[in-house]
Parts: sequence; C-alpha cells; structure tokens
Amino acid sequence: MENTYHITYERSIPERRPDGFQPKNARWSLRWRRPTPTLIAEWLGVQGVEPGGAAARDFLTALRTSMDVPDGPEAWEVFFCPQDETGRPAVVAVAYWTSATAHAAWSCGSRWAGWWHSPARLEDGVGYWRETIVCPYERHETIYSQPHYRIGLGRTRESETVEITTNGYFGAMRDRIPLSAIDPLESPLGVEVVQGPPLDPRGRRIIVHSPLNTSVIRSGQFWHDSEPEQAADYEDALRPKLDRGMDHLEEHASTGTIFLRRLTNLDEHGEPRRETSIYAVLQDIAGLEEWAARHATHKAIYKHQIAKGLEYGPRRDVITWHEVFVLPENNRFEYVNCAPGTGLTRIGPWTTPAA
Amino acid sequence: MENTYHITYERSIPERRPDGFQPKNARWSLRWRRPTPTLIAEWLGVQGVEPGGAAARDFLTALRTSMDVPDGPEAWEVFFCPQDETGRPAVVAVAYWTSATAHAAWSCGSRWAGWWHSPARLEDGVGYWRETIVCPYERHETIYSQPHYRIGLGRTRESETVEITTNGYFGAMRDRIPLSAIDPLESPLGVEVVQGPPLDPRGRRIIVHSPLNTSVIRSGQFWHDSEPEQAADYEDALRPKLDRGMDHLEEHASTGTIFLRRLTNLDEHGEPRRETSIYAVLQDIAGLEEWAARHATHKAIYKHQIAKGLEYGPRRDVITWHEVFVLPENNRFEYVNCAPGTGLTRIGPWTTPAA
Repeated sequence: MENTYHITYERSIPERRPDGFQPKNARWSLRWRRPTPTLIAEWLGVQGVEPGGAAARDFLTALRTSMDVPDGPEAWEVFFCPQDETGRPAVVAVAYWTSATAHAAWSCGSRWAGWWHSPARLEDGVGYWRETIVCPYERHETIYSQPHYRIGLGRTRESETVEITTNGYFGAMRDRIPLSAIDPLESPLGVEVVQGPPLDPRGRRIIVHSPLNTSVIRSGQFWHDSEPEQAADYEDALRPKLDRGMDHLEEHASTGTIFLRRLTNLDEHGEPRRETSIYAVLQDIAGLEEWAARHATHKAIYKHQIAKGLEYGPRRDVITWHEVFVLPENNRFEYVNCAPGTGLTRIGPWTTPAA
Repeated sequence: MENTYHITYERSIPERRPDGFQPKNARWSLRWRRPTPTLIAEWLGVQGVEPGGAAARDFLTALRTSMDVPDGPEAWEVFFCPQDETGRPAVVAVAYWTSATAHAAWSCGSRWAGWWHSPARLEDGVGYWRETIVCPYERHETIYSQPHYRIGLGRTRESETVEITTNGYFGAMRDRIPLSAIDPLESPLGVEVVQGPPLDPRGRRIIVHSPLNTSVIRSGQFWHDSEPEQAADYEDALRPKLDRGMDHLEEHASTGTIFLRRLTNLDEHGEPRRETSIYAVLQDIAGLEEWAARHATHKAIYKHQIAKGLEYGPRRDVITWHEVFVLPENNRFEYVNCAPGTGLTRIGPWTTPAA
C-alpha cells in the first residue's frame, strides 16, 4: 500500500465506524500505482432492442471500432438489460478511463464521437443514452469480497487491490470516500427524489447536467467460476434477496434512487455470463445508507453474505463488489430519442442543443 | 507552511524551472489552513448598462440581498467594465466560495437563484451572464507581488499567503498548478480558438458547458494606496503596456484567448477604485505561455515589473497578482438575452433549456 496513490483528509466530520470495531470478513479496495486524480466511466445504452437486433449490432460495431485507439478506454464491457427503468430492453456498455485528458480527446475526436453526434441518431428508430461519469478520486470508493477477480474500474491500468478494514459496519461506504472526512456529501435537493414535470425525450436530444452529489453505484455479482453448491445458493437464495432489495429502492423515492438498471454481462459472442451488475443513480447516498442500516430487504442480503463468508471462508467463490461515485456538479447525462422516464430526464433541469 | 493545505504529485512531466534558477523578486501564493479541495468563483454580469443605470441597480440589489446568508459567498466584489467583448458597457460581480456544498445550496436555494432563473430576466431589456467556475484545488494557482493586500480568492476564510520560489521564469505559472506535474493540461480542441457558427443569444438563455482545460485567469492591479511617484508610473507607463498586451491577446485566436474583459473595481458607493482586473477565458494556457515567453508586448510588461521591483524593493506599492483556474470539463457558462459574441457563446457547443 505504501506505493499506491490515495487521498486522506484530517477529519472534521466523525467517522461512522464504531469504536474498536473489527470487521468479520476480509474486504479489498482498489488503488493505483500512480496518481489517478480523475476516474471516468462512460455508460452507453441503446434502448428498445434485444442483443441480437440490428440496432444493437450497429451500436456495438460503432463502439468496437472506436475502442482500440490511442485515447480509447482502458477497459470496457457489454451488458444486456432485460428491462430498463422504462420497461424496455436495452444493450448497455461501460468504458473506463483514468486520464481526463485521454477521455476528453476520445470524447471530442474519436470516430465514435462522430457517430454519437450525428443527426442520424434521431432517425434510427431506437433510443440512446450516454451517461458520462467524471469523478475526482476523493469522491469515489470501491469494495471487493476477494482480491483477485478484476472487473469494472478494476481493469484499468496499474490498478491493484489492497486489504481494508473500513467494512462491515453501517456507514463504511461513506467512510471509504475520502472527501467524506470533511464534506457531508449532501444533495442541495435533499434525499427524496421529486420528479420534474413530465418531459417527452422522444424525437430529440435531452441533456441533464447533474446536481452536486448525484451518486452512481455499480454493484456487481460474479459466480461464473463458482462451484455448483455456491452457484446454486447464489441463484436460488441470494439473488432473489438482492432482487427484492433493488425492487424496494426502485419503488421508493425516499431512498434517493432516481433510477436503477439490472445488467447481465455478455461475453464476446453476445452470450450472457454468470455475472451481473446493478447500476443505480441516486440523488443522495444518505437514502441508501438508511435503507442499508434499517430495511429488512437489506438485512436479508447482508446476513446471507456474512453467513456464507464465514461458512466457506477462503473457498467463498461468489464474488460481490461495488464502485461508488459521489459526483461533483454538472456531469453530463445525454438522451437521444429515449422513452419518457429514461435516466436523469426524470428530474431535470433539461437542456437541448441550440442552433 | 507546514499547517496549510496543498497538493503535490511526484512529477511524470518535467518542471519548466531552469536548473538552479533563483527568482529575482519575492512572490507569494495563497494557501488555506484547512483542506479546500474545491474553489469556486461565480462571475455575474449585466450587459448594456452603466453602473448608475436602473438595470445595474436592480442586478446589484438582487445580489446584495442574497449574499449575507448562511451558504452565501465568503467574499464578493463589484466592477465596471467599460467595454465588454462585444463593445458594450457592463456591471460585473464576482463571488467566491471554498465549499462546493455551500455554493450548491446557494445556487439552488437562494433568493438570487429565484431571481436568476425567473423568465422575467428575458424581458428586462438587458443581457446577463453567469460564469460559474468550480475548480479542484489541484487545477489552480495564484501569485501576489506582496503578501499583505488581499483581494479575490484571497478574501476567503482561513486563507493566508506563503512565500514561493516558483516564479520569475517562463513556465512558472504552469509549474505552480499542482496537476501540471502529471497532466499536460491540453485542450482537446487545440490551442487556437475556432469560433463556432454564428449564434444569436438575444431573446433566450444559452448555456455552454466548457471543454476540458478551459482556463480562467483574473489578473489584478492595485495602486489605491500607492505613493504618487509609483501611482504615476503605473498609470503613465505600466498600464499602457498592459493594455497593449491585452489588445494582442484579444485580437489573436492563436493565443488561445476566447474573450477578455477589463474591469475596474467599484467601491461601496459605486465609485471606481484605483484597482483593476483583467478577466480572460482561454481555451488552453499554452497560447498564453507562448505569448509570455516570446511576444514583445509581454516582454515590455515583464521588464517593467522586474525593474520597478528592484528599484523600490520592499517600498514597491503597486501590487500585481493573479489567480488561474484550468478547469475540468462542463463548467457552466450561462447567457440570458446577451449580444452576439458574448463570452463562451463564441465557441459552443450550446444548449438551451428544454421544456
């Protein structure tokens, strides 16, 4: 850990860790062997198609031909979302950078940029979204249930996992975010999400620049290499509990959840892997913390995880992890011909390109 | 200096300081006695009026009644701009915060926010701008020719000046920006400014979210308390040289200058002080560096300053200083009923509120 980059502040806000607390299960976080002051994730989607559909193929072709370039992402993945926040199927990709300069060059000058900004995108008969997460290091945290399997941000250059002890208590997520030591990370809009007036994003581009402390969480589950007993336990026992928890978040604006997507990783042939992620955008992480600390649906997930960790010890092979970004203001969320209720179009304020 | 907040990175990009260089004149930078990861400046303007005009009074009243509130700015100033970048007179204000949370709360919830967002602003018969600079600490630098007089960002809470030796050579400005140790700070658009297609911002709100590394410089001059000889030298000899330098920047897109405003501080009675600032927005600081290193108009300013510093020594009482912000992407520049050519409307991409 000595040679990895990290930020710490002398606390003006007390940590949440109870005095003398020691976690029951080992956990890891991501670090980099060089300064990474900015972390970037581009979340891209095509709405209203299944993975094999023509629009999905065109979308993925446009991406694939733009990824392996000098300023391209360090890692990227493809998912299927059977039902997005509007009930439509979607094909989704995420791409990661650890250089704001490389990302901006790609964003302005790549072949993909030309494809994305083309007026033709409004005529494709599908919707598209582009949710660009540009996050200072001090506003992020990650946690992994084991140190070896790497996915998401963990596939960027010169990253490694380090063991932590900031886990296993309520508030640990916040404590892991360096800025939380000196900043309450509150939304200026409060925790409860109030949807804006109805907006119809069909037939046009709508851009939402996010309010301060809008938070993005990607929570992942990997059981591709699990032994049959643990895989069965995940699919039959843990996954239904996760689903009920996500249902609760989606259905309750008081949790701060603006929207949530359930994603299944696709392999290079477009086939589903035994690997999934929840991608959620929150107005304020305090609502998620409240749910985690008090709600039965989270207690069920949490107890199951701890019990299986203790039961299998180092043999535990269902891997869970997440990455969280509590964003500065004005991250750009763009929607092209999307269905009403897609993404941040739910809250506004909206803008549209001017000519 | 031990107890002040600062960020340093192990360099992967060489510093510009020549080997063994020692500056001829003492200089100071600003630090804070607590972590200040985000620095904020709101630049606000009313276009097309003189200081005494009704619209200027209404604008300043709206501001004054919103400043002394819990989340209000830590410091603010008022200026007159005899000719803005479109040739019109303007009354300008700047307000500073060192808390992103306080700023966002003010920005969303203050009385001023209600005034600013009101549709009535489009009917006032004047233009308005709001250029909101939200800058990570690692992307800023400041320099002062003496340690005691405080203005601009230097009036924020728990700030102090510390003596530096990163001054007096070409490239020192870049070397003082902490991130420059590991990041080239290049614009994805290159150095030379290419104006967008003509856009008419009259009669509507136009918002530009700035490209990565758009830079804002406020360069200040203070001779209010100068002895007559030095005041006369400033007004008769140095100021004309500064003016010619600024003319050059304004007239040459190759310097990276998008626009530039010459501002005179007003006192509490609305009368001009012997204190001025240049406020300039640049696409890439490399163009400014090139001008500073090579152009005759800068050499004239630079030589004059060094000579007067050596001539008067500690008696030198014409104070010069600047603050520079090399911004992350998507800082918000908003224009309401402004004249064509105002501010970042020159470059786009533009958006406008959607309903």
